[in-house]
Amino acid sequence: MHETHATDVSILGLGAMGTALAEALVKAGVRTTVWNRSAGKAEALVARGATGAGSAAEAVQASPLVVVCLFDHASVHEVLDPLVDDLAGRTLVNLTTTKPEQARQSAVWAAEARIAYLEGGIMAVPSMIGQPGASILYSGSEDVFRQHTALFDHWAASTYYGEDAGLASLYDFALLSAMYVMFAGFMQGAAMLAPEGVPASRFAEMAAPWLTAMTGELAGYAKVIDGGDYTVPGQQSLTFSNLGLFLEAIAEQGVSAEPLAMVQRLIRQQVDAGHGTEGFARIIESLKAPASE
Amino acid sequence: MHETHATDVSILGLGAMGTALAEALVKAGVRTTVWNRSAGKAEALVARGATGAGSAAEAVQASPLVVVCLFDHASVHEVLDPLVDDLAGRTLVNLTTTKPEQARQSAVWAAEARIAYLEGGIMAVPSMIGQPGASILYSGSEDVFRQHTALFDHWAASTYYGEDAGLASLYDFALLSAMYVMFAGFMQGAAMLAPEGVPASRFAEMAAPWLTAMTGELAGYAKVIDGGDYTVPGQQSLTFSNLGLFLEAIAEQGVSAEPLAMVQRLIRQQVDAGHGTEGFARIIESLKAPASE
Repeated sequence: MHETHATDVSILGLGAMGTALAEALVKAGVRTTVWNRSAGKAEALVARGATGAGSAAEAVQASPLVVVCLFDHASVHEVLDPLVDDLAGRTLVNLTTTKPEQARQSAVWAAEARIAYLEGGIMAVPSMIGQPGASILYSGSEDVFRQHTALFDHWAASTYYGEDAGLASLYDFALLSAMYVMFAGFMQGAAMLAPEGVPASRFAEMAAPWLTAMTGELAGYAKVIDGGDYTVPGQQSLTFSNLGLFLEAIAEQGVSAEPLAMVQRLIRQQVDAGHGTEGFARIIESLKAPASE
Repeated sequence: MHETHATDVSILGLGAMGTALAEALVKAGVRTTVWNRSAGKAEALVARGATGAGSAAEAVQASPLVVVCLFDHASVHEVLDPLVDDLAGRTLVNLTTTKPEQARQSAVWAAEARIAYLEGGIMAVPSMIGQPGASILYSGSEDVFRQHTALFDHWAASTYYGEDAGLASLYDFALLSAMYVMFAGFMQGAAMLAPEGVPASRFAEMAAPWLTAMTGELAGYAKVIDGGDYTVPGQQSLTFSNLGLFLEAIAEQGVSAEPLAMVQRLIRQQVDAGHGTEGFARIIESLKAPASE
């Protein structure tokens, strides 16, 4: 066995994302040990200079910094729970997609086992790792984050959100949720135009700059929300935001209005509660205080 | 009565938008006659140089180009149907928010009455009229559009979509629908973070550049949709896009997951139909062929 260095890294889990993370480190000259439950995934990485580990235990023992990027929270603990003694005194960075509550459970588990623990939420697809535009959100041990920021920057822009290990996942999920909903809104528009023979690509050319411009409205909505007063002047009222005409037009195109009908329900809930003259930003209250379902 | 000029314009309807449209023309030196059903709305415009009309008929007679910006399709015809003889031989630009089918009905009505007809969909709030960033989509008579583009450009960037009078409204509604859905997605994220004490403004600072970056994905989805083959390699599969973990995390925050649950239903419909290995763009098929509801 070679002597381990402070910056040696072991990566457990060589799916598309784990492989991309390992590749970025090998490319940066970091001594990287890799392991995957099923064989064959490590070969290409080893050919490029990574060290293949014969077991998860061997991988953990090879480096002071252990990174896991596995299928889910359960698989993280299937692999790591038997290795707590090996992990004690080392640093664990968990880049597996997990819920905030699961991240917090892992942080408690790690503290009990004397493992320094940092959680990360990856805002990128594997092909973006090491490229501009990729971002990873971290929370948990600030010491771990500060000590290894330069290493993490080989993967993506690194931002730290706080000692609560659940925060990275929470921010990650909040941003990804907003993205998925935006994609569904794009699909709504493209589906409306399709019966007229308008290609989705034509709509994308219009929608991308339009939606980009409209992200400029978010700060204004946020200001109203944070101010807690939805009656401040200058806002578009909920009554004015009635989407009934749009929903009729979508139905007349013969397509589903499900994305926009969702927005209409959020509006309606506030109007029905007597807030029709207040600003559109108030729809967040329909989410904060869900109607009984 | 003064002699009318080719560029004289009459504007019927002085709500916030009609007033903004009239103001932009007066500012540009266009001879502008204004009328509103209820009195008092014209005074400020007249003080700035517009001519007030005592009736809708007088307003129509004052200019070869008549612009209506009224409450809805019904109010357009309440005001204009008694005036078809006055309108014959003139040009009518309808900037009232109407459904595509209503715009098409108005185009037929105008053709029968020998009125040159153009429909417009305004992509702006009143305060944006005459400012960069405002846009108006037009469809209907191409002759009318070509002849008056310079005039229309006093209001906003002007784009023509075709002879079908319904197209402007359809594009307008498609873009606005996508915007409203995106706003709901932002609210979803802000609501998720609120229980941790994260201000909505903090989330807006993250979400605006993130969503802007993610509009870069729309062209790729559109290409797959237009190609008609959701199995082309390199896409995130519908099965991989399972949002179950996100939905659980949102519920654990004690807030409604309604926006994201909408996306999950679109995904599920395709997965249940056996398309789980195909690309995420396939969710548009859930909208194009709505499930029986």
